[in-house]
Amino acid sequence: MPSAEQPAPSAITRADAVGLDRDDPLAECRGRFALPSGVIYLDGNSLGALPAHTAARLTQVIENEWGAGLIRSWNDAGWFDKPTSVGDRLAPLIGADAGEVLIAESTSTSLYSATVAAARLRPERATVVSHAGNFPTDLYILEAVQRSLGLQRRLIEDPSRGLAEVLDDDVAVVVLTHVDYRTGRMLDLPALTRQVHEVGALVVWDLCHSVGAVPLDLSAAGADFAVGCTYKYLNGGPGSPSFLYCARRHQAQAEPPLSGWQGHARPFDFTPDYQPADGISRFRIGTPQLLSLAGLEASLDIWADVDLLALRRKSLSLTGLFMDVVEARLPDLEIVTPRSPEQRGSQVSLRHRAGAFPIVQALIERGVIGDFRAPDLMRFGFAPLYLSHADVWDAAATLADVVTTGVWREDRLQQRGTVT
Amino acid sequence: MPSAEQPAPSAITRADAVGLDRDDPLAECRGRFALPSGVIYLDGNSLGALPAHTAARLTQVIENEWGAGLIRSWNDAGWFDKPTSVGDRLAPLIGADAGEVLIAESTSTSLYSATVAAARLRPERATVVSHAGNFPTDLYILEAVQRSLGLQRRLIEDPSRGLAEVLDDDVAVVVLTHVDYRTGRMLDLPALTRQVHEVGALVVWDLCHSVGAVPLDLSAAGADFAVGCTYKYLNGGPGSPSFLYCARRHQAQAEPPLSGWQGHARPFDFTPDYQPADGISRFRIGTPQLLSLAGLEASLDIWADVDLLALRRKSLSLTGLFMDVVEARLPDLEIVTPRSPEQRGSQVSLRHRAGAFPIVQALIERGVIGDFRAPDLMRFGFAPLYLSHADVWDAAATLADVVTTGVWREDRLQQRGTVT
Repeated sequence: MPSAEQPAPSAITRADAVGLDRDDPLAECRGRFALPSGVIYLDGNSLGALPAHTAARLTQVIENEWGAGLIRSWNDAGWFDKPTSVGDRLAPLIGADAGEVLIAESTSTSLYSATVAAARLRPERATVVSHAGNFPTDLYILEAVQRSLGLQRRLIEDPSRGLAEVLDDDVAVVVLTHVDYRTGRMLDLPALTRQVHEVGALVVWDLCHSVGAVPLDLSAAGADFAVGCTYKYLNGGPGSPSFLYCARRHQAQAEPPLSGWQGHARPFDFTPDYQPADGISRFRIGTPQLLSLAGLEASLDIWADVDLLALRRKSLSLTGLFMDVVEARLPDLEIVTPRSPEQRGSQVSLRHRAGAFPIVQALIERGVIGDFRAPDLMRFGFAPLYLSHADVWDAAATLADVVTTGVWREDRLQQRGTVT
Repeated sequence: MPSAEQPAPSAITRADAVGLDRDDPLAECRGRFALPSGVIYLDGNSLGALPAHTAARLTQVIENEWGAGLIRSWNDAGWFDKPTSVGDRLAPLIGADAGEVLIAESTSTSLYSATVAAARLRPERATVVSHAGNFPTDLYILEAVQRSLGLQRRLIEDPSRGLAEVLDDDVAVVVLTHVDYRTGRMLDLPALTRQVHEVGALVVWDLCHSVGAVPLDLSAAGADFAVGCTYKYLNGGPGSPSFLYCARRHQAQAEPPLSGWQGHARPFDFTPDYQPADGISRFRIGTPQLLSLAGLEASLDIWADVDLLALRRKSLSLTGLFMDVVEARLPDLEIVTPRSPEQRGSQVSLRHRAGAFPIVQALIERGVIGDFRAPDLMRFGFAPLYLSHADVWDAAATLADVVTTGVWREDRLQQRGTVT
């Protein structure tokens, strides 16, 4: 049900949306989540919804594994291996093989680890490249990497075009975000990976706004490193741990910057000198936060049987429907997200110079939860597993009401931050 | 009830132990924990026991804050501020002021952050000092710090004596662990801190085996930095997040190595350049793992009204009783942990050259859970909040039975690691 096959924008009715839901092969997935009533949740690109079985799973881990098993659960419940065993379960969602994905600490820490390790694989080069509009933590962490390794930085305004101008044989690493957190624009990951490799550099992909939303095949693309968070489309829970991907061909030479004991070849020998483990485990640092990791593991149950191509079709259908209704009802509103499916993640961003913040607040008051990104963007994420076309139509209609009636001008609302 | 006031070793009976419990002001704390029946748990120095209310608390956080509150809970449930608000709750346990403690990522990551930040405060110096027998991750992370900053290292065999020989005006940072994970030996934190300061260096204290077990007053000692884990005596849950202490006087100049967006002065402005937050928040990196952090927060409820001096008295009484019974019943067994209360944490380590591992396994089979540290140590941790003197007496008697009967020679057991 791609957008192109939908009725002309002006003619889309709620009944049409309900009709699309009737043919939705993923419709039953909504029952896998515990969503509050009266809410249309379009912020799953920031914090994914709660899977229906997560609370019971955590209770089981807490009472049985921790409470009764105590220290024995590090072996008996497989706790020690969770960073790799859960990593193996996540791997198919990004087109990685078993043994290439680690569940790690925060995304920022993983980005630091991956970028330093990548740069150390190109010791004769002194430049890192990124996108000037990258998610800020990527740029901040890049500053940290530069300082630690003595590298210089080149930033480009548009990674889909500008890369050729800055790539040369001094570039060690390129750090790019696959789907832009503000605009929802998606880059051509395979093509850019090839372009980076042509000058002998390595690429670190930030997949925070991609994983669980768009198809990914890191193996086919020949990607080097990737990181991403699991609390958005994957529904791992607030702050659930990040993942770190390192292609198998780089693992034996990789030198992660935080050589903690859990990444040691024989952590329980307690030898005084660090010797990295084989494989992806060398990116382990300290003891994993097991309760948060259990939340992620529970959420991966939901993903085990999801057809990722069907997911992508539904995602495009939802974002397409939203853009169609907005375009028909609010023709003056700028749709920032690209119309082309090849350039679109699973979110739609709209620009409203005067009212983006109060409009988002007015929507939240009316049960439609999206978010605001300064200075003038309204961001709506479309999680295909728990949203219907009817939800999307209702959300767009509510938005049209709020904007056209001007009710947002009257609401008394204050600006507050939310976590992306 | 210090050890010195107890009856002579040979005369201690189980009735004596029960008598000590009758006068125990902390006896009611045991009811705050959900301990499995048939187990005497002497591994709370590795993974603390489960507080009775933690599972319900997690269910509340998951169902109400995440499930119903969704993204709004970052503000409405105070999630964004948890690393500092929970840090403020932990602060009294280490003698820190509000605003000096952050709940962070893993202990290894926090140690890296604290040590790099400390070394950067002494940029004209090129040496770091530590203890050759330090917990391995401390040494491994020190290697990482050395590499990142181009520093050299001096290791000493006995930090209680050897420090003077290696301290000079080239030493930037000294990294020491307060209570040794193998021997249970406790260093004189105030005296060593003074000694380090005399040469103008800074000290990073690892409090993993101290916090919740022995009195700590970092402010009075004038400590610079400290880190510690919360899943041992604090009972935060498996892998619960570490804490990082930075004395207020250093905060404005501190330059943490992992400049993630949550440590930014204005994280929601999404500006391209990193500007550190004021205060301890600049040590934040990425999004905190909220479910694990909720486990820690629940455990701190238990600590709110605990008299830390009473805790210390009971700890010494428990470890003293254990050593007394062991000495009386197993006079040939080497007690590695110092007898002097000033040098003793809350654990007792015993050396058995041939049988340490199978003896620990035989004890576990008999419901007494301690752990083994290669090559020849048996480690027993005494958490004063949930252990009684009768437990300790029973554990020592079981140990005496296992050793004197030689039953451990017959058990078929394999060596497996456990997390410290």
